[in-house]
Amino acid sequence: MSAVLKGACIVGQSGGPTSVINSSLYGVVKTAIDNPNITHVLGAEYGIKGVLNDRLFDMDQEDPAELEKLLYTPSSALGSCRYKMKDPDVDDTDYKRIHEIFQKYDVRYFFYNGGNDSMDTCNKISKYMQKVGYECRVMGVPKTIDNDLFGTDHCPGYASAAKYIATSIMEVYHDARVYDTGMICIVEIMGRHAGWLAAAASIASAYGHGPDLVYLPELPFDMESFLEKVEKIYKERKYCMVAVSEGLQFADGTFVSEASTSATDGFGHAQLGGLATKLAAVVGEKTGAKVRGIELSLLQRCGAHLASATDINESFRSGEAAVLNAVNGITDKMVGYERRYENGKYVCDIKLFDLSDVANTEKKFPMEWINETGDGIRKEYLDYVMPLIQGEPATPRKDSLPVYANLRKVLFSK
Amino acid sequence: MSAVLKGACIVGQSGGPTSVINSSLYGVVKTAIDNPNITHVLGAEYGIKGVLNDRLFDMDQEDPAELEKLLYTPSSALGSCRYKMKDPDVDDTDYKRIHEIFQKYDVRYFFYNGGNDSMDTCNKISKYMQKVGYECRVMGVPKTIDNDLFGTDHCPGYASAAKYIATSIMEVYHDARVYDTGMICIVEIMGRHAGWLAAAASIASAYGHGPDLVYLPELPFDMESFLEKVEKIYKERKYCMVAVSEGLQFADGTFVSEASTSATDGFGHAQLGGLATKLAAVVGEKTGAKVRGIELSLLQRCGAHLASATDINESFRSGEAAVLNAVNGITDKMVGYERRYENGKYVCDIKLFDLSDVANTEKKFPMEWINETGDGIRKEYLDYVMPLIQGEPATPRKDSLPVYANLRKVLFSK
Repeated sequence: MSAVLKGACIVGQSGGPTSVINSSLYGVVKTAIDNPNITHVLGAEYGIKGVLNDRLFDMDQEDPAELEKLLYTPSSALGSCRYKMKDPDVDDTDYKRIHEIFQKYDVRYFFYNGGNDSMDTCNKISKYMQKVGYECRVMGVPKTIDNDLFGTDHCPGYASAAKYIATSIMEVYHDARVYDTGMICIVEIMGRHAGWLAAAASIASAYGHGPDLVYLPELPFDMESFLEKVEKIYKERKYCMVAVSEGLQFADGTFVSEASTSATDGFGHAQLGGLATKLAAVVGEKTGAKVRGIELSLLQRCGAHLASATDINESFRSGEAAVLNAVNGITDKMVGYERRYENGKYVCDIKLFDLSDVANTEKKFPMEWINETGDGIRKEYLDYVMPLIQGEPATPRKDSLPVYANLRKVLFSK
Repeated sequence: MSAVLKGACIVGQSGGPTSVINSSLYGVVKTAIDNPNITHVLGAEYGIKGVLNDRLFDMDQEDPAELEKLLYTPSSALGSCRYKMKDPDVDDTDYKRIHEIFQKYDVRYFFYNGGNDSMDTCNKISKYMQKVGYECRVMGVPKTIDNDLFGTDHCPGYASAAKYIATSIMEVYHDARVYDTGMICIVEIMGRHAGWLAAAASIASAYGHGPDLVYLPELPFDMESFLEKVEKIYKERKYCMVAVSEGLQFADGTFVSEASTSATDGFGHAQLGGLATKLAAVVGEKTGAKVRGIELSLLQRCGAHLASATDINESFRSGEAAVLNAVNGITDKMVGYERRYENGKYVCDIKLFDLSDVANTEKKFPMEWINETGDGIRKEYLDYVMPLIQGEPATPRKDSLPVYANLRKVLFSK
């Protein structure tokens, strides 16, 4: 592999959006535009589907001022997809098509911005191009509010979602204890298999305005014990607040939300939701209390106005590092983070991980950070998470409302 | 009535909390503490219940720095209640008790901070004290995210909720159109009988990131027409976003959420909720689309981090004006707002309204501000609402999380 490789680059976004995935996109696009080895910067519409469909935006034609607003624009500006790539040994149709598009535009750099499944896509494309001898440097740019990517200390997007969850719960905490008649409040938080997001509710507790109980999917859920605990707290204090992960499962592996038999997303995951409502009904019946179930829903992953400035900055850097490393000859890696402390101050370094290691591997919430009664989070987690959520975003505003990047999205034609 | 009246004051908060009801509380408490005619400032625990139960906090013992944080602290810091006062001609037990407490502490000023029902309480107490010849100046301090109080141009708390709704919907808008597979998103917004809050969703539309359809409870809801419109938009554009008021009713007056037969709050109102989920199911069946129902739930009324600085300031002024007017001999009024424009710039003046006029009267959303197809909001509303949501709150923060007022709540003893 030559050190200097000239050609176009493609960047795509994949999987569920976050508040800061566009910060990573901006990191890739800005760095790529500025780099003399990259001849064209192409943005794939709806992730890998944009490559397959030859729908590529010419990012060089975007207004730099609008591109900069991507730092504060939630969701995936290029559009996203949940598209499962087949095993190329079984069906290589898609791979041939991608190869064809890469050749058509002389694409020598491919940056894919997403979570576990997206890193799988990225890895498969990387390995295929190596196999067919097409020189293209492939780099994964991490993204996921779930914080479950292998290797990296944390994932871009997680901190902003965690901050949204913590802040919103601090507010709801006060609202949910305003009447002397008492109340039980159950807040449902995203997280299919890993409890990182639900754990963020414990930040609010640590600051004195949060849930009494926090349940993560890392432990089997016992309804009887849950109801006993809630009732005890409610009887003693008139109020009880609980944070639950949407992915809670009984010991037999079935989802508490009982949605495991319903529609699935493109990757075969069960579509969850409605857990708070369900638990609220059960708790209400058991206790006779006024119970409110609240689902943070999409709000928690697109609440850019509450993003962490640290997260925005690191997300930008992950995109930037992907381009700089690729231009320097690196390929087949995912950019990740490694933390260290300098005079007690948190510092985030970029570290690269093999795509093969990252693809489809899920990093669970550490069991040793869950308390011994299985209903709360230990201080070690706080030490971990607090540096990540620091700083307020410099969101541009007009009339006191956020202003987002307005991209032209001109299709590239050779 | 003498111009100079010396004595203690009681302030209470009642009804559903808001992001800024504590700003009004601070306006009352600070102004009362500073006024030489007011001998003691007492905060009633859980609204009028605190008077009935002789649970009154000595506000003079609070740290002034903590009191100031009330400006940015969501929910009702003294606690609230939904307590319907009986007609005194039928049962005057409560009134005699209140009279007794007023006499016990030489209470000559009573400030009650709430919405329609609270103004009814306030009015009844005022009239009773007049009837029994006990001199006490009674002032209502308005509060309601519903914006449905009679007379006043707008209500403290409404603008902050509107800003939360508009901003959150702008964010969700982007998240809900990220996949090329299309999506329909239904957002449920509070508002039992008046559509002011749901109308705030149209702010997001006016700025290019909002719902295609907005439904208010001021018009009967036609399911068939609704489904036709949603399906048409979805088929044309692959995406459709709808904002609905929780209080939508069919032409026969039954709630679309079908919750009218379930539990009621203390005033006999039906407890609503679950409309988004219900409509999402119906729409999903009709269109076959991926549909997401989102309920903004309590978040919209306690989202203090997104409060309007204008709202905070005006809420403080309404509390301040209640005290200053009462000390100057005014009684039996609710403080309200009147707007004017000075060189095109919005100015808010304090205006007083008779409690008798305000009590239990609901101000609906103006029919002439709803578009002719009954599914959207006209520009007149934007002209009305935009000045109200301006300015960001100067929320004190620690570790990038909000810091709230921490009150000592020392019970007053004579």
